[in-house]
Amino acid sequence: MRATLMYGAGDVRIENVPDSVIKQPTDALVRITGSCVCGSDLHPYASMKPEDGPARMGHEFLGIVEATGPEVTTVKKGDLVVAPFAISDNTCEFCREGLHTSCIHPQANFWDGEPDEGGQAEAIRVPLADGTLVKLPVAPDSALIPSLLTLSDVFGTGYHAALMGGVNERTRVTVIGDGAVGLLAVLSAKRLGAEQIILMGRHQTRTDLGREFGATDVVSTRGEEGIDAVRALTGGHGTHVVLEAVGHMPAYEQALGVVRAGGVISRVGVPQYEDAPVGFGSLFGRNIRLAGGPAPVRAYIEELMPDILDGTIEPGKVFDATTDLDGIPAGYQDMADRKSLKVLVKP
Amino acid sequence: MRATLMYGAGDVRIENVPDSVIKQPTDALVRITGSCVCGSDLHPYASMKPEDGPARMGHEFLGIVEATGPEVTTVKKGDLVVAPFAISDNTCEFCREGLHTSCIHPQANFWDGEPDEGGQAEAIRVPLADGTLVKLPVAPDSALIPSLLTLSDVFGTGYHAALMGGVNERTRVTVIGDGAVGLLAVLSAKRLGAEQIILMGRHQTRTDLGREFGATDVVSTRGEEGIDAVRALTGGHGTHVVLEAVGHMPAYEQALGVVRAGGVISRVGVPQYEDAPVGFGSLFGRNIRLAGGPAPVRAYIEELMPDILDGTIEPGKVFDATTDLDGIPAGYQDMADRKSLKVLVKP
Repeated sequence: MRATLMYGAGDVRIENVPDSVIKQPTDALVRITGSCVCGSDLHPYASMKPEDGPARMGHEFLGIVEATGPEVTTVKKGDLVVAPFAISDNTCEFCREGLHTSCIHPQANFWDGEPDEGGQAEAIRVPLADGTLVKLPVAPDSALIPSLLTLSDVFGTGYHAALMGGVNERTRVTVIGDGAVGLLAVLSAKRLGAEQIILMGRHQTRTDLGREFGATDVVSTRGEEGIDAVRALTGGHGTHVVLEAVGHMPAYEQALGVVRAGGVISRVGVPQYEDAPVGFGSLFGRNIRLAGGPAPVRAYIEELMPDILDGTIEPGKVFDATTDLDGIPAGYQDMADRKSLKVLVKP
Repeated sequence: MRATLMYGAGDVRIENVPDSVIKQPTDALVRITGSCVCGSDLHPYASMKPEDGPARMGHEFLGIVEATGPEVTTVKKGDLVVAPFAISDNTCEFCREGLHTSCIHPQANFWDGEPDEGGQAEAIRVPLADGTLVKLPVAPDSALIPSLLTLSDVFGTGYHAALMGGVNERTRVTVIGDGAVGLLAVLSAKRLGAEQIILMGRHQTRTDLGREFGATDVVSTRGEEGIDAVRALTGGHGTHVVLEAVGHMPAYEQALGVVRAGGVISRVGVPQYEDAPVGFGSLFGRNIRLAGGPAPVRAYIEELMPDILDGTIEPGKVFDATTDLDGIPAGYQDMADRKSLKVLVKP
């Protein structure tokens, strides 16, 4: 079968790889009908060393179950399913609390931790299929597919940011980043009733979509200038919640600048740093809280799906390009060049 | 009048200084009847450079109002009052939300930011007296004075840690540090109903008091050994909440080691570092939250006082030594040497 491999920064290739097959009695084999390139894939695309590759790519997908191991009970051959970016059993104490990304099952993992599988491919072996996969009640050619595909990562991740930030109807929110996660953090903050949603982003086509998703204000400047603009929009004090959907240190510093005393910085952009300012002059002195992490999107699929199915929301609007497998390398480059917001892949 | 000045690390002196006097119409002049040395005073006592001194010391006190400016309405001459370690107007939007340490009044400040005043002295000028001072309904020689004095900082600070950590009856808690704040964080976690309270501390007389305050377990080891011990007490996963009452980097690292995935590290020990690990390998990957800061103890005085007045709790047990002003330099040294837990000063 064909799959996507990254050999190093800027070097993505489509190659023939051994067919994925069932290995464990709890596995399912899924023929992928929809996948995509993630903003987080752009981090290794910018910096991966050749000695760390090649790596199978892709952690967002939906598809049709082709086969199941003998212990799988919740999905069957022919079902259309979506998979979160984390494999989990959905039964351990952490999963029961909704923290599937900390599932303690020995096979629990991120897709990036499965060296022989990836979502940007023709097929995939799904471990812990009962816990991981969720059946979709639509046909594989439904117009809702792009929106349902966002349940695998970007919508659930934006929603996690807003939830961990404690967004409610008395909350002013700043969203840092106009990528797919940032825009869906806007949609999520709107869904939770935020009083004000300030989107910080520099790409007008994206921030226009952000306004459509619920942003009340857009700030296109960055650094001190951007911080001043947000403060001017909030009576000088900044916002109660900042949703940080980038992951680079300048975004963290910007979050410190726009967050209100006593507020929360909720991070879902994967940090490209380990150490950051948290002392008296940054978080501590003003009682700023830091929250977030890899989203347990499995916990949110059932909650978010109904609004997609009935057309209330259309998170799939973040896809502005579609390609087949052969177009994936160009899709990475287009996203890195900010020509594409998010690329949908139909293998 | 006589007051305490720090000239540098290890150099604390009692000297004659100009008498404190009313300067603003919102000031009160307080004759101090009870004060103390704070664990946070030990940070400059360990590291202060002579060029940064001399500094007036003391931010915890109670006393009798001697005079008030013409705009003061809530306290009057002869009242016994307690003051929080932060000056605030108690009316701005942050004070109304209970975050008095971020009061936006131009005169709002920490006592450490008032160069000509300090609580380890015979008297003190209290700015924003209506917002800052709280009248105590006891006589100046009441046996409750030591406990009421803890409302100025250490009890409210321990309580802030527990509140910001979200402690409730379904919460397992680790408290790092057996100083006065750590022990009163134990008492606070107990008050909020914590299911389990593990106190990490090495001084048995202190941890014995911690048990009296509600600790269910004591871990006297530190570093990896201490982390392993806490994990052994919690089914391997650590505790939902960690109350960090030290402020040094090893305590932060210990907190990372004992906190459960999805849990909270609530810091009230003043950080003696600015940068700390917060990336994928520390906070982010396991969705650990970071909370805390300087406690708005003014917000908690009315809430915590009744249990002191009726004898339900006795936070004043953290005082294990009493001195007059002349004994303050030795008090600092005894606390630094861990011979005294907390020194009560009767000027």
